[in-house]
Amino acid sequence: MAANVTIATVARLANVSRQTVSNVLNAPDLVREETRARVRAAIEKLGYRANLAARQMRTGRSRLVAVRIDPVREGVETTVLDRFLHGLTDAAAVAGYRVMLYTATDDRTEISTYEDLLASYALDAFVLTHTHHGDSRTAWLADAGVPFTTFGRPWGDIDRHPWVDVDGAAGTGAATRHLLEQGHRRIGFLGWPQGSGVGDDRQHGWATAMREAGCDVTRLDRHTVDGLAEGEQVARDLLRLRQPPTALVCASDQLALGARRAADIPVIGFDDSPMAQISGLSSVRQPLGEAAAECMRLLSALLDKGFRDAPGPVLLKPDLILR
Amino acid sequence: MAANVTIATVARLANVSRQTVSNVLNAPDLVREETRARVRAAIEKLGYRANLAARQMRTGRSRLVAVRIDPVREGVETTVLDRFLHGLTDAAAVAGYRVMLYTATDDRTEISTYEDLLASYALDAFVLTHTHHGDSRTAWLADAGVPFTTFGRPWGDIDRHPWVDVDGAAGTGAATRHLLEQGHRRIGFLGWPQGSGVGDDRQHGWATAMREAGCDVTRLDRHTVDGLAEGEQVARDLLRLRQPPTALVCASDQLALGARRAADIPVIGFDDSPMAQISGLSSVRQPLGEAAAECMRLLSALLDKGFRDAPGPVLLKPDLILR
Repeated sequence: MAANVTIATVARLANVSRQTVSNVLNAPDLVREETRARVRAAIEKLGYRANLAARQMRTGRSRLVAVRIDPVREGVETTVLDRFLHGLTDAAAVAGYRVMLYTATDDRTEISTYEDLLASYALDAFVLTHTHHGDSRTAWLADAGVPFTTFGRPWGDIDRHPWVDVDGAAGTGAATRHLLEQGHRRIGFLGWPQGSGVGDDRQHGWATAMREAGCDVTRLDRHTVDGLAEGEQVARDLLRLRQPPTALVCASDQLALGARRAADIPVIGFDDSPMAQISGLSSVRQPLGEAAAECMRLLSALLDKGFRDAPGPVLLKPDLILR
Repeated sequence: MAANVTIATVARLANVSRQTVSNVLNAPDLVREETRARVRAAIEKLGYRANLAARQMRTGRSRLVAVRIDPVREGVETTVLDRFLHGLTDAAAVAGYRVMLYTATDDRTEISTYEDLLASYALDAFVLTHTHHGDSRTAWLADAGVPFTTFGRPWGDIDRHPWVDVDGAAGTGAATRHLLEQGHRRIGFLGWPQGSGVGDDRQHGWATAMREAGCDVTRLDRHTVDGLAEGEQVARDLLRLRQPPTALVCASDQLALGARRAADIPVIGFDDSPMAQISGLSSVRQPLGEAAAECMRLLSALLDKGFRDAPGPVLLKPDLILR
């Protein structure tokens, strides 16, 4: 029995894709009987299962990766990270890992949770979310020599670790260009208070697209915390301008849906939430399944090759969903 | 050596912060030599790490519970189980457990995943969701002697295990009685195809409340798969009755929001999804945080006392949220 039997080895021997092997293991009903038999024969011949346990003991790997899930808070949208989590669990299973959850409310409690988890479960790695300016968690993990990747780039810091992110500026840029193509010249932007990496990035995409089209952006942006009422209020504020905007690009679906209460003009949101889908709101959709799969790919490479040869960061393009 | 030695205990004895203890364990270079020596002495005196590992070995417990998360599918609402998962992670942490995720698409793949998980991770217990008539998973786990609880009652089967559920009939009953109090006598019901435990229970709540008020329910219910378009269609169908309903109670928010497109009459949904919140739709809200906490309470009792003395089932009342 070879030391490096993986799903890929099984796939090669059975002459099928990795996904097919994974389906045979996890969702056999999706696979034709003949193919299933061939894959099962390959698994048996290579001793795939037995090998997994042996490899775990030899390498000292638990094949467990931990990811944070937020506490339930009334009125806080968790759809984006929940969708990421579904994708991560899928991608982890294909790569032979399992996902363990933990909750945290801030960097400090999260770091003390790392200690507990590492002491109790010999985790292989962490997938961090909620990256932000001056993030003390990534420094802690790097110093402790714990493998990790982040979904979210290291805003403002040096890239000391592999990360995956979605190009928010590309998303708001595409939304803005779509409105420009419809003939709009005064397109406003509703965003979050300045200083957050994600929020500033989304504003940057709008401003850049406007300037590239030769459009003035002066006074056309407003900033507030996320929420329907907040979106409505800042939209009303913008519409009181002597030359009000004729369309809006927003940093979130909540702001966008709030804005639609204030104005009967085209509005584009961000995140393609169920609320956007049900309300017929155009929105920017993050490829969260792909982001999760990329996180697992980076982690697998990191665990196999170490930090020095870790793969570079991955920045994914979102899709503009028009309704 | 006490059973409950934690980083905090070590920190107290060494008169340093938890962070410092953590640094000594994970990044000793950050700590002055004198402090390091004091912390190491405290760790040794209390047997900190050894104790945790020893306790795990003594009890044979990994302090890991596994719960299923569905694969991402376009257009499928996962909000309810996602909210349950957030609550479960919280409740598990409080009880000293962690949550591990797995995906599955049907009973058979889920059972084969149990085998993999039990072989690789020595899990303590499972929390099952998606209980249904003729559930082969609960029988498998019971036969294998694996502790588990379900969020969802054992529809139609004998109660062989502890379970937590939300009283769906109480929810639709409360919705129906609210509409009766508003003076409605012909209240329709939009539900799922008959035969599902959850769906039939929600219909039962409506029918019972109607009969108790002396109202006829003949021909006033319609059944379809979940979805906006589907809800709209069956609502149109109901409204073509010679004596159409003047209000509707629905088994889901999607059906309810679809129905609102067909008719300008009062409609009440189920699950209080973000879509309901944004659309101003009255809905029945499941106490998912409480359900998760109850699941952990049952599991803890089960693990401490065994099946024979396991606590009885828990049926929670949902809330009617009026908008």
